Amino acid sequence: MLLVADENIPLLDEFFANFGEIRRYPGRSISAEQVRDADALLVRSVTRVDEALLAGSRVRFVGTCTIGTDHLDLAYFAGAGIHWASAPGCNARGVVDYVLGSLLALAEQTGQRLDQLVYGVVGAGQVGSRLVRVLQGLGWQVRVCDPPRQAAEGGDFVELAQILGECDVISLHTPLTREGDHATHHLIGAAQLQALKPGTWLINASRGAVVDNAALRAHLEADAELEVVLDVWEGEPQVDVELAALCQLATPHIAGYSLDGKLRGTAMIHEAFCAFLGQVPQRHLSDLLPTPWLSELQVAPEASPDWLLAQVCRAVYDPRLDDANFLRSLQGDAATRRAAFDQLRKHYPYRREIDGLKVRMLGENPAQSALLHALGVQLV
Amino acid sequence: MLLVADENIPLLDEFFANFGEIRRYPGRSISAEQVRDADALLVRSVTRVDEALLAGSRVRFVGTCTIGTDHLDLAYFAGAGIHWASAPGCNARGVVDYVLGSLLALAEQTGQRLDQLVYGVVGAGQVGSRLVRVLQGLGWQVRVCDPPRQAAEGGDFVELAQILGECDVISLHTPLTREGDHATHHLIGAAQLQALKPGTWLINASRGAVVDNAALRAHLEADAELEVVLDVWEGEPQVDVELAALCQLATPHIAGYSLDGKLRGTAMIHEAFCAFLGQVPQRHLSDLLPTPWLSELQVAPEASPDWLLAQVCRAVYDPRLDDANFLRSLQGDAATRRAAFDQLRKHYPYRREIDGLKVRMLGENPAQSALLHALGVQLV
Ligand SMILES: NC(=O)c1ccc[n+]([C@@H]2O[C@H](COP(=O)([O-])OP(=O)(O)OC[C@H]3O[C@@H](n4cnc5c(N)ncnc54)[C@H](O)[C@@H]3O)[C@@H](O)[C@H]2O)c1
Ligand SMILES: NC(=O)c1ccc[n+]([C@@H]2O[C@H](COP(=O)([O-])OP(=O)(O)OC[C@H]3O[C@@H](n4cnc5c(N)ncnc54)[C@H](O)[C@@H]3O)[C@@H](O)[C@H]2O)c1
Repeated sequence: MLLVADENIPLLDEFFANFGEIRRYPGRSISAEQVRDADALLVRSVTRVDEALLAGSRVRFVGTCTIGTDHLDLAYFAGAGIHWASAPGCNARGVVDYVLGSLLALAEQTGQRLDQLVYGVVGAGQVGSRLVRVLQGLGWQVRVCDPPRQAAEGGDFVELAQILGECDVISLHTPLTREGDHATHHLIGAAQLQALKPGTWLINASRGAVVDNAALRAHLEADAELEVVLDVWEGEPQVDVELAALCQLATPHIAGYSLDGKLRGTAMIHEAFCAFLGQVPQRHLSDLLPTPWLSELQVAPEASPDWLLAQVCRAVYDPRLDDANFLRSLQGDAATRRAAFDQLRKHYPYRREIDGLKVRMLGENPAQSALLHALGVQLV
Repeated sequence: MLLVADENIPLLDEFFANFGEIRRYPGRSISAEQVRDADALLVRSVTRVDEALLAGSRVRFVGTCTIGTDHLDLAYFAGAGIHWASAPGCNARGVVDYVLGSLLALAEQTGQRLDQLVYGVVGAGQVGSRLVRVLQGLGWQVRVCDPPRQAAEGGDFVELAQILGECDVISLHTPLTREGDHATHHLIGAAQLQALKPGTWLINASRGAVVDNAALRAHLEADAELEVVLDVWEGEPQVDVELAALCQLATPHIAGYSLDGKLRGTAMIHEAFCAFLGQVPQRHLSDLLPTPWLSELQVAPEASPDWLLAQVCRAVYDPRLDDANFLRSLQGDAATRRAAFDQLRKHYPYRREIDGLKVRMLGENPAQSALLHALGVQLV
């Protein structure tokens, strides 16, 4: 079998060498010529995969190791009988870690206790539902808003208006949609900002335009009592520098950028490919993930839960580094800044996920184990 | 034997119970009546120990579990044949940890690499000499200024002027003295600030008035390129709020506030008391120190030295928490702020020292072991 793949997909050999020959190319330049004899094509978001690329080829399976599918012509695939797979949720845990790190930073800055706050999660898909599970596991009060899921499943959801008026922390995890009943474009605009309680924390690591950036800037410039964390920006890689300066944390769309998330993307496509071939997967991500640089933490039973929460989360990921690097990059002209945005994403520091951290408790402490279970670390 | 002690001295029983009876009193109210029948008196800095307290008593040994001796009338002790001991350097390691944490915070904010900087240490006593050892161990360039030691010992010291003009980082560790050739009062004033290179980092965790706070504020208000970390303040607990706001890190005289430092104070007085009695010490601090909440860190051989340095230091102590708590306290009127300064010191968070941290390397890596040795962690 011949597989053609973007050369930047990690763990290609580990996951795919046993299926046959792998030919690697730069993702942006993969050509019809190169894929003609391939049985499967493995890409990331930079390769546009459509009739122009695949017509006349042997390709029967397209896998993208990313959560998005905008670069795939799914209608063409359906007509041409081409199977495809993406990696939904592969980097969702990274975003959860980002939100936790942001909460710790805001708690430190404002002096508030995280367990005293009411959390509102808007959008409970791959990211949002994982976040809800962690926050609830920590014993914190959480309200969830997801009208599409509410319409489909019913259940314990609330309206956005209730989130805006009642929550101390609001974290956005919707897709960006411009049409339909539940369009999310400018979901948070001037009116919604006005509805917030003074001192609310607003976190957006979904898509930039879910928040009306101009309205948010005007709101903050009017000295609104609002603590803002933005990982995504309307019009990115172009960023409103003044808005960034008014944020407590500002980062260049890296919330989900863990190493584990990238490798999980490959693993999920491997699984989908095995299913397509009717084979049982022989390779598993857990066997191929490299040992984290921080391999194990040992904690004494006397350690307080507050201390432990901050220690575990920050030992794995602290968004203040990304914030500092990004703020410094917001200098020079617009073109320089745009380039810096992409560079920061491309040359991203080593980062793992909290649920890959091994923690050894040196004695019994039910509060500690509850907390560590909620965070999802590996108790050893 | 009867021992009278400040009730706030930790590990009193562990270190002193075997000598006889211990009577505990609040340090501020220990009276001549209470010490009359005591053989030894153990205090902290809040008890004034002089003829008024001791005349007519049986006290032959006074120990203060602190580095300072301002509260002891040493001239009277000499005349009355009373032995005494203090605990010089007991909290020096805490200050070193504070400086390391400050360097990491400044590196993150400015984007500079710590190994590219030239360090100037002013005052190489208990704190300064330990700091120099760590910085040199890390392989960094260090210049040391200590005219009293230079006069007494000769050796590799430089003038203050050279530090001011050549160093990227200047850390002050002198006592506060107002008289003599090497008086340190306002050692850093307007002229010295003018002599600094643009972008210099200035750290003061010695005594507030070693830096002319008004001159420093004026310098920063004139937009000088200078990153300032202040733990000590001229006139503390009264603090110049505007100056604090201009600092990268501002903390309420807690640089040395580790738990280990406090317990080491007791241990050192215990040792001195044993020496006074002609006994071999039977109790050792290492046996009595509680296991740190963070008991052990395990690191993979792939971990980069930069990552490891930040991970180890911050896992033990990160001054950004103290900075955030202090900045929030600088509100309200002067009396409220003074009270808050004392409260932050009194109710201080759990904190240990870097050299009490156990680190296990999971594979050979000479750069890692050199770094861990320099930091003084316990390799297991
Ligand atoms: N910053 C990053 O690095 C990063 C990483 C991963 C995902 N993301 C983004 O995060 C968002 C969530 O990702 P996901 O993988 O969880 O997506 P998902 O599709 O799994 O979940 C989205 C959820 O939002 C809900 N939703 C849709 N419209 C809504 C509305 N108007 N109000 C409330 N909820 C609504 C959907 O019903 C769905 O449950 C996406 O925008 C994604 O692009 C960002
Ligand atoms: N912030 C805190 O929490 C904290 C904790 C411990 C110590 N301290 C302070 O830190 C300072 C250093 O403490 P230490 O225990 O190392 O004191 P130390 O007496 O052991 O050392 C002080 C050193 O400064 C040198 N010195 C004196 N005058 C000098 C001058 N003009 N220029 C350069 N060097 C000079 C001395 O020769 C000596 O070597 C003291 O002011 C102490 O009060 C603060």
